[in-house]
Amino acid sequence: MTIKMTAQAHLAEVQASFNEGMDPRLVEILRSAIKHLYAFVEETKLTREEWMAGIEFLTATGQTCDDVRQEFILLSDTLGVSMLVEMLNQSASDAATDSTVFGPFYVAGAAEMAMGASIARESNGGEPLVFSGTVRDPAGNPLDHARLDVWQVAPNGLYDVQDPESPPLSYRGVFETGRDGQFEILTTRPVDYQIPMDGPVGHMLRASGRHAWRPAHTHFMVSCPGFKTLITHAFDADSPNLRQDAVFGVRESLIVDMNNGSAVFDLVLDAGDS
Amino acid sequence: MTIKMTAQAHLAEVQASFNEGMDPRLVEILRSAIKHLYAFVEETKLTREEWMAGIEFLTATGQTCDDVRQEFILLSDTLGVSMLVEMLNQSASDAATDSTVFGPFYVAGAAEMAMGASIARESNGGEPLVFSGTVRDPAGNPLDHARLDVWQVAPNGLYDVQDPESPPLSYRGVFETGRDGQFEILTTRPVDYQIPMDGPVGHMLRASGRHAWRPAHTHFMVSCPGFKTLITHAFDADSPNLRQDAVFGVRESLIVDMNNGSAVFDLVLDAGDS
Repeated sequence: MTIKMTAQAHLAEVQASFNEGMDPRLVEILRSAIKHLYAFVEETKLTREEWMAGIEFLTATGQTCDDVRQEFILLSDTLGVSMLVEMLNQSASDAATDSTVFGPFYVAGAAEMAMGASIARESNGGEPLVFSGTVRDPAGNPLDHARLDVWQVAPNGLYDVQDPESPPLSYRGVFETGRDGQFEILTTRPVDYQIPMDGPVGHMLRASGRHAWRPAHTHFMVSCPGFKTLITHAFDADSPNLRQDAVFGVRESLIVDMNNGSAVFDLVLDAGDS
Repeated sequence: MTIKMTAQAHLAEVQASFNEGMDPRLVEILRSAIKHLYAFVEETKLTREEWMAGIEFLTATGQTCDDVRQEFILLSDTLGVSMLVEMLNQSASDAATDSTVFGPFYVAGAAEMAMGASIARESNGGEPLVFSGTVRDPAGNPLDHARLDVWQVAPNGLYDVQDPESPPLSYRGVFETGRDGQFEILTTRPVDYQIPMDGPVGHMLRASGRHAWRPAHTHFMVSCPGFKTLITHAFDADSPNLRQDAVFGVRESLIVDMNNGSAVFDLVLDAGDS
């Protein structure tokens, strides 16, 4: 005859094992993570086999990552966690442009380009598109020295890092505004594409009846001294997947008309630390 | 001016994206996981940088796994999740022996041995120990054909898979009871040891003020047709770490006297599917 320990007493024992004197924020995060993880296990009455399947899924997700593939970001994106983190951290100001997911395909080190230059490769075809707009502060003043890091898929629906045929850093570029805050960036119209489905995340999505499509978009990361860095997309208003983005990143305010070879995408940064 | 979406509406949108017609249990688990994950993110007001640090931690944890190392089980163990899963899945019967964590060091394929045989390597030294006991059903009847899969650390504090000097499958053996349900297994007295601290889990434990010690124990996995498989340990009553197990696996009922070269560890299996 043994006295069974309750889940509540177990949680208290585990939480008490951390020493908040070491790193109070880390311990706060770990204690909260454990509490909510236990609530999940209890609510689902997770079996040993299911727990082991979860361990194997997470292990495979980690092992699918390499220099150019980040399957854990993809998992976070497809479960909507990335977008939630963006929502909680984005500007409280209604004037600032909405942010959206960063995504797994950013690569640092894209070429710095003059305004009006093209990030596309002509030989790839695609529908030419000019992005233009102005970067402003919430009061409407144009921002000088705003840096726009821009990246998107090629017309074949692949990012450079996914395409062995593509030279590195294709469809990527960095632009800096002048005193008028304006920018002009040549590219090709982005296309709808499927997120990578050949790894553990793809397996999970297929098994749970999810699709893999993202509506056509171009990524913008915009920074400026004294302002909060903005991470966002411009979405194509004509995409058939606008209402069913696989990573839940669409916001009405980010949908722009990309017909007739041009798209206007004005951007507002909020004051604050980058 | 944009209308900000609430976290609640976001959760509802993501949960609705799964199709429960495909695999109802998988979708139930994913919807619950997301709900509790969002509650964690909201409670801690997780920043983008903290979320990215978490992604990097999980990625490194997956990449630390190989054929003989399972860092995600170690993470689950050290956060007390493994023990919680055991608690929720163990027998409802008060008569059955308490279960505890499976741990990351089980290896299938240990030699089948005759009763009274030794799983230890004599050349390694250590204090000789004989485990004996009877496997019974909850009514007290001895169980014939109960299979005991037993494993433990060598006297140097390492499992075979951690020790390049060790032949494979050392300190592991499989034994089967006869009609009397009795078993007798020779080994060496297990020693307290530290869980692996050279990976991401070790980094997390150090950063949050945790130690790495497990109290000395021998693992038993006991199966028998018509009964639930029992996964448990016998803990040494003399261990200085009994009250501070790094994986929270100790139960009073599992603590046994290992002095004088012998330890009695009677086992009760609950009726049910394995």
